[in-house]
Amino acid sequence: MCELLGMSANTPTDLCFSFTGLTQRGGNTGPHSDGWGVAFYEGKGIRSFHDSSPSAKSEIANMVQRHPIKSKTALCHIRQANVGEVCLANTHPFIREMWGRNWVFAHNGQINNFVRRQGIYQPIGDTDSESIFCDLLNHVRDDLNSDVSPIDLAKYLVALANQYAKQGVFNCLLSNGDWLFTFCSTKMASITRRAPFGPACLTDADVTIDFAAETTANDVVSIIATQPLTSDEAWEVYQPGEWRLWHDGEVIAQGQVSIK
Amino acid sequence: MCELLGMSANTPTDLCFSFTGLTQRGGNTGPHSDGWGVAFYEGKGIRSFHDSSPSAKSEIANMVQRHPIKSKTALCHIRQANVGEVCLANTHPFIREMWGRNWVFAHNGQINNFVRRQGIYQPIGDTDSESIFCDLLNHVRDDLNSDVSPIDLAKYLVALANQYAKQGVFNCLLSNGDWLFTFCSTKMASITRRAPFGPACLTDADVTIDFAAETTANDVVSIIATQPLTSDEAWEVYQPGEWRLWHDGEVIAQGQVSIK
Repeated sequence: MCELLGMSANTPTDLCFSFTGLTQRGGNTGPHSDGWGVAFYEGKGIRSFHDSSPSAKSEIANMVQRHPIKSKTALCHIRQANVGEVCLANTHPFIREMWGRNWVFAHNGQINNFVRRQGIYQPIGDTDSESIFCDLLNHVRDDLNSDVSPIDLAKYLVALANQYAKQGVFNCLLSNGDWLFTFCSTKMASITRRAPFGPACLTDADVTIDFAAETTANDVVSIIATQPLTSDEAWEVYQPGEWRLWHDGEVIAQGQVSIK
Repeated sequence: MCELLGMSANTPTDLCFSFTGLTQRGGNTGPHSDGWGVAFYEGKGIRSFHDSSPSAKSEIANMVQRHPIKSKTALCHIRQANVGEVCLANTHPFIREMWGRNWVFAHNGQINNFVRRQGIYQPIGDTDSESIFCDLLNHVRDDLNSDVSPIDLAKYLVALANQYAKQGVFNCLLSNGDWLFTFCSTKMASITRRAPFGPACLTDADVTIDFAAETTANDVVSIIATQPLTSDEAWEVYQPGEWRLWHDGEVIAQGQVSIK
């Protein structure tokens, strides 16, 4: 299995604190040592880093921890391989262009013998996750128009996600840089930080931050992760089948479907 | 204008030496200070870095200079903006998936009022370069099959490149990770290094390398750049309209067309 980390914020914010916590789980406090990747949106552009070595020991991950890259939307993944060898082509998050935007996807879970809809988008590596991403994009491109509203798109994505979740485990993060769609099949939690900001302490590293010193009164920053990353804050745990659509740090749509 | 740097090698090789020379031209020895990017293939996967700040002052570029990333095919670009604002979405090299491979493209030159063929691939930013890349991919996807041989593909690309070069300036690097296609409209040079290896000295920085200490007798490593990067080696200068198709460090096809 793997671990996911997403961020949605109303102002460009760095991910250093959460990223430092997550990457410890890549070979240090956790077994997710088969590569890691992160994508930071900057407008419609993205800055992405992928590495097939363990995040806890990666020089590139070390640079990302120290170098504050500010973004309103970011997606990160650390991998414990089940399907597909350990190599760069199998490292999340996966990225494709659709309708003139970068779409970025990261998946936690497994769907055995997944059969994807044929179409424009084809996997480059050999993970079930990338195959599911291509299936999802081929469905969206076939069935919707580029001017679909985020809410209508989310409804469509929920129906797809529900089908995936019925075939296996499907926790995901998906974004086009404007919104961040999150779906929980088994495990996901989120926290929204806003004024008055306080301190927080990482679960996986001896690091405490005082958000009050790093933010302004209007900042809203939400973190979505497989498991809570801090030990002294109240995270909201997703229920199986629950989804949330984030924009500028806030939930703009949410719901729950039966995945039994 | 911009500067290009490509590498084709028969064994995974780092680009640190050439990259160090090129990045000096991004705000130090040259005026190309509007961002830079590089993509390293690792199998079918890619490791890419993009930054909209000057390469000579970029912390990420500094990390790439120091951290030897080994690759058989790499493409790099430093930008001096003419069309499109300075932002991440306008930073080369551009990347798209086609036929289950990462296609990577970098362009030096300018085509004013370029009109692209409509199709699957759409630009994310607003440069003429990305628009040309999307046009190229839409043509290839419409007109060829995924099993086209590299030689037949190159012939098709030459005809397209010729059309572009007649509309403006079009020096380019294009790869799918297997081959590296290079086309010169105005300015390009290459060098192939093989045993017996000797020393070389960068033009843009006070750095000398002894390739004999870094290589084995069977290594073949070719560097393609807008301008020679070393002062003490014999670079082969491309003529206008000249193209070369590289694979494993060797030219596997080449020719010249009239772009008048």
